[in-house]
This record gives sequence, structure tokens and C-alpha cells, in this order.
Amino acid sequence: MVKVSTKYTRVKEIVKEPFEEIDSKGIKVGVREFVVPVPQKTYYHGAGWFTLKQEKAYDEFSKALEDNATLDSENSYVPLKHQYKGIRVDEHPEYLHDKEWAMATFNGDLVGIKTSDIAMFCYLPTEEDIGCGMEIGYAKALGKYVVLVIPDEEYGEPINLMSFGGADLVLKMSELANFDFNKPEFNFYNGAIY
Amino acid sequence: MVKVSTKYTRVKEIVKEPFEEIDSKGIKVGVREFVVPVPQKTYYHGAGWFTLKQEKAYDEFSKALEDNATLDSENSYVPLKHQYKGIRVDEHPEYLHDKEWAMATFNGDLVGIKTSDIAMFCYLPTEEDIGCGMEIGYAKALGKYVVLVIPDEEYGEPINLMSFGGADLVLKMSELANFDFNKPEFNFYNGAIY
Amino acid sequence: MVKVSTKYTRVKEIVKEPFEEIDSKGIKVGVREFVVPVPQKTYYHGAGWFTLKQEKAYDEFSKALEDNATLDSENSYVPLKHQYKGIRVDEHPEYLHDKEWAMATFNGDLVGIKTSDIAMFCYLPTEEDIGCGMEIGYAKALGKYVVLVIPDEEYGEPINLMSFGGADLVLKMSELANFDFNKPEFNFYNGAIY
Amino acid sequence: MVKVSTKYTRVKEIVKEPFEEIDSKGIKVGVREFVVPVPQKTYYHGAGWFTLKQEKAYDEFSKALEDNATLDSENSYVPLKHQYKGIRVDEHPEYLHDKEWAMATFNGDLVGIKTSDIAMFCYLPTEEDIGCGMEIGYAKALGKYVVLVIPDEEYGEPINLMSFGGADLVLKMSELANFDFNKPEFNFYNGAIY
Amino acid sequence: MVKVSTKYTRVKEIVKEPFEEIDSKGIKVGVREFVVPVPQKTYYHGAGWFTLKQEKAYDEFSKALEDNATLDSENSYVPLKHQYKGIRVDEHPEYLHDKEWAMATFNGDLVGIKTSDIAMFCYLPTEEDIGCGMEIGYAKALGKYVVLVIPDEEYGEPINLMSFGGADLVLKMSELANFDFNKPEFNFYNGAIY
Amino acid sequence: MVKVSTKYTRVKEIVKEPFEEIDSKGIKVGVREFVVPVPQKTYYHGAGWFTLKQEKAYDEFSKALEDNATLDSENSYVPLKHQYKGIRVDEHPEYLHDKEWAMATFNGDLVGIKTSDIAMFCYLPTEEDIGCGMEIGYAKALGKYVVLVIPDEEYGEPINLMSFGGADLVLKMSELANFDFNKPEFNFYNGAIY
Repeated sequence: MVKVSTKYTRVKEIVKEPFEEIDSKGIKVGVREFVVPVPQKTYYHGAGWFTLKQEKAYDEFSKALEDNATLDSENSYVPLKHQYKGIRVDEHPEYLHDKEWAMATFNGDLVGIKTSDIAMFCYLPTEEDIGCGMEIGYAKALGKYVVLVIPDEEYGEPINLMSFGGADLVLKMSELANFDFNKPEFNFYNGAIY
Repeated sequence: MVKVSTKYTRVKEIVKEPFEEIDSKGIKVGVREFVVPVPQKTYYHGAGWFTLKQEKAYDEFSKALEDNATLDSENSYVPLKHQYKGIRVDEHPEYLHDKEWAMATFNGDLVGIKTSDIAMFCYLPTEEDIGCGMEIGYAKALGKYVVLVIPDEEYGEPINLMSFGGADLVLKMSELANFDFNKPEFNFYNGAIY
Repeated sequence: MVKVSTKYTRVKEIVKEPFEEIDSKGIKVGVREFVVPVPQKTYYHGAGWFTLKQEKAYDEFSKALEDNATLDSENSYVPLKHQYKGIRVDEHPEYLHDKEWAMATFNGDLVGIKTSDIAMFCYLPTEEDIGCGMEIGYAKALGKYVVLVIPDEEYGEPINLMSFGGADLVLKMSELANFDFNKPEFNFYNGAIY
Repeated sequence: MVKVSTKYTRVKEIVKEPFEEIDSKGIKVGVREFVVPVPQKTYYHGAGWFTLKQEKAYDEFSKALEDNATLDSENSYVPLKHQYKGIRVDEHPEYLHDKEWAMATFNGDLVGIKTSDIAMFCYLPTEEDIGCGMEIGYAKALGKYVVLVIPDEEYGEPINLMSFGGADLVLKMSELANFDFNKPEFNFYNGAIY
Repeated sequence: MVKVSTKYTRVKEIVKEPFEEIDSKGIKVGVREFVVPVPQKTYYHGAGWFTLKQEKAYDEFSKALEDNATLDSENSYVPLKHQYKGIRVDEHPEYLHDKEWAMATFNGDLVGIKTSDIAMFCYLPTEEDIGCGMEIGYAKALGKYVVLVIPDEEYGEPINLMSFGGADLVLKMSELANFDFNKPEFNFYNGAIY
Repeated sequence: MVKVSTKYTRVKEIVKEPFEEIDSKGIKVGVREFVVPVPQKTYYHGAGWFTLKQEKAYDEFSKALEDNATLDSENSYVPLKHQYKGIRVDEHPEYLHDKEWAMATFNGDLVGIKTSDIAMFCYLPTEEDIGCGMEIGYAKALGKYVVLVIPDEEYGEPINLMSFGGADLVLKMSELANFDFNKPEFNFYNGAIY
């Protein structure tokens, strides 16, 4: 019996498998031992970045996601990194009316939702973001796993009924880094709903 | 040839159909003339009602919808009229934490979206509502026709990219009463997108 | 003001519309009056027909549906009337293994669900039918309005959790003939769930 | 009993309904008689228009659709009439690379499919059109009723397996004008499949 | 050439990759050899547990799933382990009418279906379970891979037409432990359909 | 710091994890080092094989897919390898009218699309294939990631508007072997659209 001591190990399983190899030098018999790593899920990084409070939560959210051993942050979709041609309209307001930019960036975000295992949202009850709202609804109807993450200090504050119902799981920010996303489950938001 | 003078007639077609009726008195032959009324679509009445500005737009929106001859307002779904057990949480804050109330009201709203021909939204660029956002995304992914209606004085103001992309049609409030919803079409919002 | 006395009238609205007609004899001006009939919804007639109790409920269900003024029974989909080539396997057991028969009849039933406004089920808590179960799940995921109708004498008896959650509306048989399906709403089954 | 002699009548039902009207002159009691017209379905007019043979079939197809009493051609979606800004790229090749034109016209076609009851295709086995192929697949996955109409002289010729499986109903052109689309059903293409 | 002798090996591939590492001690050049394990799919564990026969099949089903090297049982969703708050209504009948319990457990099961690669069912032709029926339909419409597993002694017995059509693959219980779920395929049930 | 020199390495991460094992001989403490391999996506191999040009492109396409380190070709779905009972209708024309063969092969292809991460198409602008068209539409509506791969010599040639809009990403054949499919993104086809 093997006991692995760390809590959030990357080891799913240690396989010991007998093998028999035949090559020009003859037959070799043995046991091959290797590690099967813990599976990782990808996520769509849903969040507003339009106010100071949103920006602060955005950073905490991003860090906790990267720390989570069951998530593959490297291969997850962060909309802010996929603005069409690398152009952010908040920095380049001349693109505010560019339909090609808008459609490509919008379609990119849909690709992000569709190709990710989880639609994950940094959700501020006091500064709800309509962009996240649309993504929650889209992901829900598409059959994605929808997760809201709420900063601890705002957890409990009233959230919109449609976000409540769209969510499959609501976490506190402090729970995010260690939640096991290989074990999806459902819960209700334990806060107010308006 | 029949020319009907009113602009928004409820007459789709006047049928003149020959008929032959047989009853106890013998055979009667004639031409039956009747009116086929203009078809009407049902809609989901999506709107926030949380600020004074939203309430004012809500009323204009409701009135224009009722005035539109191609919409069946009587049989359309207005969420505010479908709060579970007739209870509004803004008036009964003791229900803010009631999961049964929340799930039933949320599921009712989804029924509204699913059973309506059009997901119609009263959309204020300066006071975007996350509930509408969620409904836009849900309706879009479900394949519903998504229409945003923007008060004339706010038309052109920046809207969220996800609302832009979720919309199939964007109208000014002043265009709503007379738009022919039996002729669905696509357009782009001619305003800023952030 | 016009008051219509019958309870379940087929009159939605009486329109009086001014008109102006031009033909070879000159201009005719007048007011055209016509009736706009109540809209009717189509339904998928979901039911088992494998036991005596199911057959009895089937007949009551069919009659109530036909009596309902807001439903178009003539143009609704009854699976038993759409067995491929008119062949019922309970009468022709030689078709029990015929893949072509099975795929065509199955696809026909899916067509019935997809082309109907409502997925309507005759639901017996004491004799739940797996075929209806599958159709409830399919219709739910497709975004159809899912209605269960339960014989009054069985209303309250335990039903499967997945049927409970799949349903948008649960009616007693005695409520079916007069329910207004132009006003879709959500409710919970007020009975036991196992 | 009323027997209506024409085969494709627009009369669904003749309602005789007792009424009681109260106005300033007193109470009036009577029976109101009115016609409920046959319901009509809308369709997405799917067809290629890139070769002479396609153009010829396109015209026959359009005419038969207009002749069908169960279809509402006036309110159905014909892509060729919804090219963005009225511009056809076959006549304005300078738009061949215009992303805004392409996205708007494409999104318009999706609106057409989503808002129509039926996805209807003029299908030439000898000149299959990839645009129709995409629309068949999209409509199928969306849960629309997918109908292929094949010119009589080509009926039986091999069609692609994915079109075969995507179709819910396959008609000959000569059957189109009189098919009752209020009675949707499933059939298999009785021709070759490659 | 490497020949691996075991039939159901966990080794997908043995990679030998040249590398060049630079650290404070200088450059190290070499070949890194490592094992890429066989991918594993997750499943939704669909089954009734309401009769003795169902319980027996449930245990065989669970064991075979755990034995299958291409399935990740540790991270798959077993409804019986996700009853809301750990409460089973068969043991706590006081929850039979609890809407919060019912909605949370139902939503949990939907999460299970949505987050799993495969919707897998322990299917008894002689004791069909309506809960599984609903899940088969829901999973089918959602685009999941639907697999029915039938105890060998019941394989061939008649199953409901809707289960037949909802299934993508039907296996005998004895085939389950060794089926390669990384190679999804379609087959027809080779038994009777009613 | 570890620098890995190869460009398309199969190493995602090298984990060094402290462990503590307890067995009959006592406690062993150490650091376990293991490789986490790069994740791989599965794809649906969409392509025509009906002309010489299609066959040539088919082979280049297949080879590039196999060469791509981020794709799991071994476990991807190739329709040509899943013709029902191993029968190809181009070689066995007696199956051209066999409904069981057609439905099973068609359903198999849908299984391939549904169970794959990516719907990938070998797309020839000069010989567009309607089967691919249907699959593009179906995959798009289902929320799959849709990728078109165009031989370099044909890149830029006009493609059908519905393929343009259905695609999430368009690559040149020469880009296929090295594209990182763990980083899904959106782009527009940079060619003509008709």
C-alpha cells in the first residue's frame, strides 16, 4: 500500500505493469512503474475588468485558478488575451465601432466557452457584469458546468435570480484554489437572491 | 383587387372560397368569404425594474409591445407577473433566501423564454441589467430570436460586447410599435461596443 | 364594450377595421369587422398503451385534449397513429426485430416532439412508462414545454425524481380540458418524489 | 353537418358560438359564426442558385411553396431576399472579401432557420449544394423539421449519406404544393445513398 | 520496437524525447523517456436501485466499470453518492415532499450528465427504470454518448423503442470491463424492440 | 529552471513532489519526479473521398493530423473506418438502398462528431463536399469547435458563405501539423466568400 502524504498531489495513480519486450538482443521481462497524473480541466475565465474592484478580484481569481492542481490554466481561455488582433477597445477606442473586430472577439469568446470544460466566473454581487451574465446563460443552455466564484467579503450579498439559477456551483474565493474540479457537484448559493 | 387603407392592418388575406354544403334541405352552393388575420408572435418580456430609469423604459417598452399588431401581448410572458405565488422579493424581502421561491420563479422565466417566439429585451446601455444578460445568452444558445430595444435617447451609447453578439436585431424604442415581427431579419447595433 | 358569455370562447378578439377599396365601380369606404380566433398550440401525445390502466387513462387524456379550446388536436402528433407503414409491433410481433421499422417509428416520434409546441404526457405514478421518460428528457433538453397530466385518483402518489425535475407543469386530469395553454407557466408537482 | 367541397380549403373549422352582449341599448343574445382558417407554417427557403439547373428548380420550388395552402410564404425567409444591404456577391464581387457583409448575411440566414417552423430545401442529387448541406446539419441539430424536395426527374438518384440522415421528410417536387405541413411525419428517401 | 504484452495496458505510448537543460552547473543533454498513460473517460452512472434485481445488476455494473482501464471511475458521477446533504429518500421518507432536496438532487444529476463524457446505463429489459429513461433522452438531446449495458441473461429481451433509439451503443454486461471507450462506435441492439 | 529544447515537446510539466510512504518496512521519505504529458485532443476526421483531388488532400490531411503532437489520432474518429459492418458503398453498390446500413453508418458519424473534441475538415474550395457541409452545420449547432483545413494551393479561393460562417478556425494545410490545439482560437478565413 502506498500512502501519498501531500494533500493536493498531482499523482492520480502509480501503475505497476508487467511487460515483455522483444528486440534484437532477446526478450526482456520486467515490471514498468509509472505515474498517472491527476486529470486537469480547462475553464473559460469569465470576469469583468472595468472597475478597480473588478480588477482586484480578477487578479485573485486568476491566481487561485493557477494554484488549483485540478485545473490546466496554461490551456484555458482568458478573453482578455484573445482580443482580436491583440487590440483592447478600452485602450483603442477607435475600434468601438468596428464590426469585424467585434464579431471576431465575440466569436472568440464563444469558442472559449465551447472548448472549455468549465465556464468559471469571478462574480461580484455588488458589481455584477452583464457580459458575464450573457456568458452564464449561454454556457448553461449549452450544457456546460457553470461555476461562480465570489470574493469572501461579498459572499452572502444579494445576486440576481438569473445568475442564481444559471449557476451549478457557487464557491467562495478562498475555496477556489483547493476545490477538486474532477469531482463536479451541485450546490445552491447560500446568500440572498433578488 | 382589394386595397386596404390602414397601415397596420390585422388583415393578412381575404379568402373567397367556393363551397358546396349538403344538409337535410338539399345542396347549397356558394362562395364563402372570410378574413385570415395577420399572424402574431409571442415574446418574452425581458427587462430590469430596479431603478427609476429602468421603470420608465419598462413602461414605454410594454406599451409599444401592446401597440404592435404583429405581437400577441395577451399571450406573452411577463416575468413580473409570474413571481412564484405572486410574491415579489422587492416587496417581501423575507423570501430573499427561499430556495423554493427562487427555483420556481427562475424555472418560470425559463418557461417564458422557451415557449415564446421572441426573446425581447428593454435594453439600457447606461444601466445594463445582468438578469437580461443571462437571458440573452440562454435564448441565443437555445436558438431563439433575440431582439434588443433601446430607448432612442440612449441609442448609440456603448453596450457590452456579449450583448452585441447575442442580439439578432437591435431596434430603437420608437421603431418597436410598428416593426413587422412576421418578417424577422438580422442587423448590427449601430453604436459603440465595449 | 363586448362581453362574451361562454367561458371557453374561441374568440380572441373582434377587430373593427376601416377600409377603402378601389375597383372598377369606384371607391368603397367602410368598416370591416372580423373575428380573430384564439390561438391553438400543438402537442406531442406522450403515453404508454401497454396495460389496461394505461389504456383507460389514454382515452381520458385524449378526450380532454380534444376538448381543450386552446389546443389543436387535429394537427397534433399521436405516436400510435404514426407507426411506420401502419404496423404496430404489439399486433405484428414479426417486426420486433426490424431495424428499419424501429428507426423510422423512432424518428417519427422525434419529429412529433420537435414539431409540437408542447410535450404532453399522460403520466401514471403507479405505472410509469420508460418511453415517456425518454421523451420527457429529450423534450426538456431540446427546450420544449413539458407537461405531465396525472389522473386525479393518482395525483400525490410518488413519482420519479427525474420526471419531477423534467416537468415544467403538472396538471390533474380534471384540469386538462380547461387549462389555457396560451398562458404557459411553471409549477411544482405537489406530491411525493422518490 | 357541413361538407366543404374544395380539396385544399383554407377553412379549418366553422365555429358557432352563443354570445350575450351588453351595451347601452340593452342585452343582445345570439350565435356568432366565424371561420377558423387553416394554420400555416413558415419555412426557411434553402436552395442553391449557382447553376442553370439550380435556378430552374429554384423557381419551381418557390412556386409550389407559394401554392401550398398550409404554408405562409409571405412570412417565410428567403435568403436571396436578405443579402446584407441588398448586395448579392455574384453581382458585386467587390464584397467577396467583406467580413461585415459576410457575417451579417450569414447571421441573417441563421435567423431565417431559427425563426422558421420548417427548414425546407430544394435538393438536386446531381448538383448538391454545400450551403444547403451546412443548413441541413445546423437545422437538424437545432431540432427543426428538415424537409428535402427533389425534382421528380432526379428522385431516386444517389444522395449523400449525411443529407439522407439529416432529412426528416423527402418529397418529390410534384408532391410539394399539396402536402399538408400541419401533419408532419417522417419518411426515408426511397433512392440511393452514397 | 517495443512490444507490450498485457492486453489492457495502461500505457498509451512510451516517448523518448531529446532534451537540453541549462542550470547553474552547465548544460545537460540527454534523452528523456516517459510513459503517456491511456486516456480515460468519465461516465454518468445511470441505474435504478429500487428492486433486488436492480441492486444485483447495479453491483455487477459498478464493478465492471471500475475494472475498465479506459474509464476513470474515481472521477465519475454516481447519483447515489450525490443525494443532497447525503440524504436518501428511501431511508428518509420525510424528504419525499421537500422541494429544495428534490431540486438540488435533480440538478446534481444533470451536472453529472453534463460533466461526463459518457451517459452509461445499467439497463434491465425486464425492469426498465423511468429515471434512466429520462436521463437517456436528456443525454441524447444534449449530444452525449449514450451507452446501455444489459445483463447477459436479459440480452435479447424486448426493450422500449425510445431506449432503442436513444442508445448509441448497447453492450452485454460481460463485455463492459474490456470495452475500449477511447474508440466510441455505434451499434444497434440485437434484440427485440416493442 | 528546466529548459526543454524541442519545439513540439510532449512534456507539459515536470512535477517534483515530496512523498512519504508507509509500508511494512517502515517510513520512506523522498521526492517523486514525473512527467505530465501534453494533453491531446480528439477529432472527427471530416473529408470527402470521391475524387482524385479529394483523395490526395485526404492523405496529406491524415498525415498532418497524425504528426500533430497535440492531437490523439489513435483515438480519433475516421468515418471511412466506421462504415457499418465494414462495408463501403462505393465498393458494394448493392448497399446503396439498404436503410439499416445507411442509418447505422450515419449514426456512427454523429457519434464521431459528438464524442470528439474537434470537428476537423479537409476542405477543398474547388470541390466542396456536401457531406462535410452537413457535418459542419451539425457540429456548429452542437457547440463543437469547427476547424477547416485548406490545401495551401487553394487557400484564398472562394468558399460558400455557410462554411465560412460555420468555421471557428481556418488553417492552411501546411500549418496543421504544428498548430497547438490546446490553445483554441477564432479566426476568419482570409479568402473570398460567395
